[in-house]
Amino acid sequence: MGKLVIVGSIAFDAIETPFGKTDKILGGAATFIGLAASHFKVDSAAVSIVGGDFPQEYLDLLSERNIDLSGVEIIKDGKTFFWSGRYHNDMNSRDTLVTELNTLGDFNPVIPENYRDASVVMLGNLHPIVQSSVIDQMTKKPDLIVLDTMNFWMDSALEDLHNVIKRVDVITINDEEARQLTGEYSLVVAARKIHEMGPKYVVIKKGEHGALLFHNDNAFYAPALPLEEVFDPTGAGDTFAGGFSGYLAKTGDFSFENLKKAVIYGSTLASFCVEKFGTERMITLTDEEVQKRLAKFKQLTQFEIELN
Amino acid sequence: MGKLVIVGSIAFDAIETPFGKTDKILGGAATFIGLAASHFKVDSAAVSIVGGDFPQEYLDLLSERNIDLSGVEIIKDGKTFFWSGRYHNDMNSRDTLVTELNTLGDFNPVIPENYRDASVVMLGNLHPIVQSSVIDQMTKKPDLIVLDTMNFWMDSALEDLHNVIKRVDVITINDEEARQLTGEYSLVVAARKIHEMGPKYVVIKKGEHGALLFHNDNAFYAPALPLEEVFDPTGAGDTFAGGFSGYLAKTGDFSFENLKKAVIYGSTLASFCVEKFGTERMITLTDEEVQKRLAKFKQLTQFEIELN
Repeated sequence: MGKLVIVGSIAFDAIETPFGKTDKILGGAATFIGLAASHFKVDSAAVSIVGGDFPQEYLDLLSERNIDLSGVEIIKDGKTFFWSGRYHNDMNSRDTLVTELNTLGDFNPVIPENYRDASVVMLGNLHPIVQSSVIDQMTKKPDLIVLDTMNFWMDSALEDLHNVIKRVDVITINDEEARQLTGEYSLVVAARKIHEMGPKYVVIKKGEHGALLFHNDNAFYAPALPLEEVFDPTGAGDTFAGGFSGYLAKTGDFSFENLKKAVIYGSTLASFCVEKFGTERMITLTDEEVQKRLAKFKQLTQFEIELN
Repeated sequence: MGKLVIVGSIAFDAIETPFGKTDKILGGAATFIGLAASHFKVDSAAVSIVGGDFPQEYLDLLSERNIDLSGVEIIKDGKTFFWSGRYHNDMNSRDTLVTELNTLGDFNPVIPENYRDASVVMLGNLHPIVQSSVIDQMTKKPDLIVLDTMNFWMDSALEDLHNVIKRVDVITINDEEARQLTGEYSLVVAARKIHEMGPKYVVIKKGEHGALLFHNDNAFYAPALPLEEVFDPTGAGDTFAGGFSGYLAKTGDFSFENLKKAVIYGSTLASFCVEKFGTERMITLTDEEVQKRLAKFKQLTQFEIELN
């Protein structure tokens, strides 16, 4: 069982969907990744930054799940990163209402000494230079570095983004971002171009339409579970990344066949995340519920056809 | 092995895509359905209407594939249904440039005597009253009636549409149409409402995002094969319907488990259809190529996860 380093924001989110709205609640990429990965009982460390306004109970909630927080810097007189957004009726698009970087604006991640030899590094969405600085700190080449990013960095720091993409094994990116990064409409062609930028594995997230895993000329498709309603999509991508990287850290098998399973675990965990606001559902989620839903994913996708 | 009745248009299409344009070429729902179903070596009959301008070579092409054409009426002094459309750059939307109903405007399908006891009836997209009239002619209750339809009939003949939906076992419909028919955004809820209208099985086609099969509370998801390029989507939905209904007519097994396989066969055949203009690819398609692509679909979707 390998160790997992998780780098990303820990934040306050205020969310508005057609189903209601929240005050400032627990959010952030590292939070969702950590909660999802905790289902695999790996040794994980979150590396992040918060302000003095961040409640101890939220920190306790993470450390109770065996997430090492020694790499989470607390700036006593600073404020925690705050994001607020409103989802449109179709839940596929949203408006950002507020982004207050606060302490996250000065984030210089420092990986705890005993995690510098981790086997899996999960780089949540952050400035690509910050992501690169994490890779620099690893004393042993990780078995797998996974990078999540978004269109914002393509618009504002493309060269830095290319520099970190080149150094990772897996990139997770949504369909529109894959198209923007490559200038290609076809996701097959876009994935090939991203391979050429460095990553062996390309995961293209398509929201309600699932996720595609590409490796050379092989593709694997994990659908999203069809749900009666998507209550709040916030954190679904990070939860996917947490399930994906947590499963891989646990198994230590980085073959295409095993990455398929990691994609299914990521999709399974993400299917819970959207059922309630923010982290609410992930906090109550049991391993038994995960296993039951995995069985649903099997029913949803598995068939028996004899080939001639 | 059961008999398959295919009812739908046989047409001329003129297609424009970002990759080029065609003159009037062979098209129509019954054509695509018949070509796809022919891979299952079932006894099938196309029931349709064409004008005196319809080339004998096109008729030969269909009858060479064991499609009985005795139910295809030829109006010597009439013209064949003609449709022309232009696809947008993303291939997911199109403008209809020309619709000349011609002989199709007076289509009164007459099922050949020896097909009135067919086990599977595939009702291609037509006026719902015309579709109903086909069901009326069956002397033996078919094992499975499959209905394809589109938003046009929801706008112009909703009551007639409801009357025929009530009489069928399977409906195939795209995601936007399912939402329009039910007023529900969630496809899970939409499928449940359509179940309540009559059909035991609901197939929701999502284009490049694949197809969902619903049966009571069970769902099955068949992805579309990720392709380098979609050259021309014309006929993909009908080809899906042809693969689906052809496989079911061949096997005579109408369980959920077997309908899953039918959806995979439908998706497999549709993945070829979009590779060239109109029916071009379907005409050259060999059974060996179909088997190879089925293997690709297995690779794309099958995984091994042991549940605890």
